[in-house]
Formats: sequence, C-alpha cells, structure tokens
Amino acid sequence: MADQLILLGTWISPYSTRVKIALAEKGVDYEFREEDLSNKSPLLLKTNPVNKQIPVLIHNGKPVCESLIIVQYIDQVWNHKSPLLPSDPHQLAQARFWADYVDKKASPNSSISVLDCETQETAKNDFIGCLKVLEGELGDKPYFGGETFGIVDVALIPSYSFFFAYEQFGNFSIVAECPALVDWVNRCMEKESVSKHLPDQHKVYDYISERKKKLESK
Amino acid sequence: MADQLILLGTWISPYSTRVKIALAEKGVDYEFREEDLSNKSPLLLKTNPVNKQIPVLIHNGKPVCESLIIVQYIDQVWNHKSPLLPSDPHQLAQARFWADYVDKKASPNSSISVLDCETQETAKNDFIGCLKVLEGELGDKPYFGGETFGIVDVALIPSYSFFFAYEQFGNFSIVAECPALVDWVNRCMEKESVSKHLPDQHKVYDYISERKKKLESK
Repeated sequence: MADQLILLGTWISPYSTRVKIALAEKGVDYEFREEDLSNKSPLLLKTNPVNKQIPVLIHNGKPVCESLIIVQYIDQVWNHKSPLLPSDPHQLAQARFWADYVDKKASPNSSISVLDCETQETAKNDFIGCLKVLEGELGDKPYFGGETFGIVDVALIPSYSFFFAYEQFGNFSIVAECPALVDWVNRCMEKESVSKHLPDQHKVYDYISERKKKLESK
Repeated sequence: MADQLILLGTWISPYSTRVKIALAEKGVDYEFREEDLSNKSPLLLKTNPVNKQIPVLIHNGKPVCESLIIVQYIDQVWNHKSPLLPSDPHQLAQARFWADYVDKKASPNSSISVLDCETQETAKNDFIGCLKVLEGELGDKPYFGGETFGIVDVALIPSYSFFFAYEQFGNFSIVAECPALVDWVNRCMEKESVSKHLPDQHKVYDYISERKKKLESK
C-alpha cells in the first residue's frame, strides 16, 4: 500500500514551506490542505492538540509537528536521496545549531516587528545583524550544508518570500547589507524544490499590507 | 588517545545539568568547568561566539552548543549503552517534540516569572498548566521515554531542583497539582545519573532568595 501523506499548512507560512521543500527534495507526493487559522480544522486540532499550530505532516495517520522536527523526520524516512542532515555527529550538531538559530532569530515570526513602526528601528538592526551572522557562517560555501543543500538552507530560504515586504516597510536593502547571502538566495532559487514552493514576494507584500491596514484602522 | 571532554556550565543551570545527566548515563568521564556568567571565560566566548551561553561541550577541541543538541550529540557518539533517543522515526519525532515543549514551556528560564510578584499569578497558572500537559503525556509510562529513561526525561528532570523555590515563592504545591509527575520525579531520582547531578533544592532556593533580595533593593 502506498504511503498516505497529508500536509496541513498555509500558503504563506514559511514553516509550511520548509516542509514542502523537504518533501520536494525527496520527490515524495503528498496532499496539501490549506488551513484557515481563524477557524482551524478538526484534523489540525486533533493532530496537534498541544500547540494547535501548522505545519503538521500526517504520515499514514500518524502526525508529526514542528517544522524542523518534520524536516528531520522526512530525512530519516525517505533516506534514499538528497540527505538534508550530515551523518557526522559534529557536523550534525552544527547543522542543528544553525537551524535552531534561524528558527529563533531569522524567521518571520521573530522578525515580524520589522513591520511595526514603534519597534522598527531596533528590529531592523537586529534582523540585519542576524543575517550578517548567517552570512558569516555561510562563508565561501555554496550552501549552509556545504556542497549540498541541507536543513539550514531549508530552514532559512522560506524567509526570502518576506524580504521584499521587509525592505518596503523597513526602508532598507538586504542586497546592500548582505550581498553574499543574496547570492545564496539566488543559488537556492535555481532549485525547483525551492522556486516552485516559495510564495511570491509581491503576494506576501500585498497580504501583509492588507493586514497592516486592518490593524492600524482598529 | 583518550577523548578529551570539557563541559562549560554553572552548578545551577538546568541546561548544564541535562548534559551532566546524559554523560553520566553513558558512563563518560569529563572535566566540568564552572563559568562565572558575569565574567565569561575566553574559552566560552571562543567556543560559543554566537550565543555566548552555557552549556558548551568541547569534545577533542570541537565545541557543541545548546543543551538538547548536546544530548543528541552524546547519544550518537556514545551509542554503546543507555540510548536516550528512540530509533523509530515517529517515536523520535515525538521525543523531539516533547523535549522542545519542555524547553519552551517548562524550563526555569520560561517559568522564572513565577518568582516575580507582578506576573506571578498568570505565570503560576501557565506553569501548572504546562506540568499537567506533561503529566498527561507521561500517562501510565514509567518514563517519558517509555520503559526507559530518555531525552524528554533528561530535558525535564533538572527543573525539579527549582520546584521548592517555586512552591515557596508562588505559594502552591506541585505534588497536590501533579501527583503522578512527582512520582515520576521520585523514579528519576532513584537513578544515580540524576540524583548525583541535580543541584540541591534548598541551595537553589537560597541562591534565588539572595538574587530576589538584590533585585528588590535596587
């Protein structure tokens, strides 16, 4: 019997995008179900009763939650191609460290205050500082994973969809600040697993503009 | 040549305690170096330049940072006994999910506001709520890892050293709220790897009392 694979997520969530990219890297088919976070589905509430958050990957009825845990799960289960995690223990610990750093510091949830006028300057500087740290870690490597695309690349690249909105609202240029990181973005975007699954920057900008307007009119 | 293993930490840090327990479970010798966090050592700043936080495990000169990443590293490198992570991919994802939950919700860093008068009531209720969720996950199992002590047990048990301080300052009883969780604590404390490395509750209470006094007199 073929595997039954359902991904609960939203089109804009960078955390959902991570899972889509990991599954695409492995060439695995799945059904994507768009969640309405203002009216979560019974299946989401049932499969992630603790955090009630997307993404959830449901594999033959068994749920796996939290995007980076899901990516590690995918890498372990579909281990026939495109390894996303190194096998060497020290390199693996390093990859986990940087994926965790991206999660805590460079994900849209952490940096969304770039969009808030009151906290904008500090948040902008923190965000740029964090991208520079990541650029330093990237160094001369083509990917964070070294010669091949890995979990840190999967963790970070979905943030690119938000760059245009950040630049417009925060009035700064990421390519001016971190040119080597933008080269890395372009390298990732050459991969179909990435370009096919990243939400369009302008669509993200429009969505955030609408939300900002609604929040400001309250 | 024997492995050279140095752990940078502090006696009170539950994150350092996690690493001590994991190393004790594996029966591995190491040198513990107490850090003064108000005057961090050059070795700490060199080995964890990004977060500058303890614990850091330095294995033959190579640093590994972040307590749960270190525990996973230890489990992979010293895999001859006491496995701390399940090998089944779904069980492994579940273990990672709960270790992450403990990290975000039930660690002293997350629950320290129980000690702050202004936020005490809310923080206390959140903390008890979180312990009840964990108690529910434990269910009838002897350990979070099932029949054997595992990464979720390692992640949570160091918080026990802070229970007495919480109870004193927060004026509540953990055993009254979560009796099955306290049974689990007692079960863990029967293990030498745990009882030998957990800081004494009264010493922790005295330390926190001193810090509270200093903060309140400012």
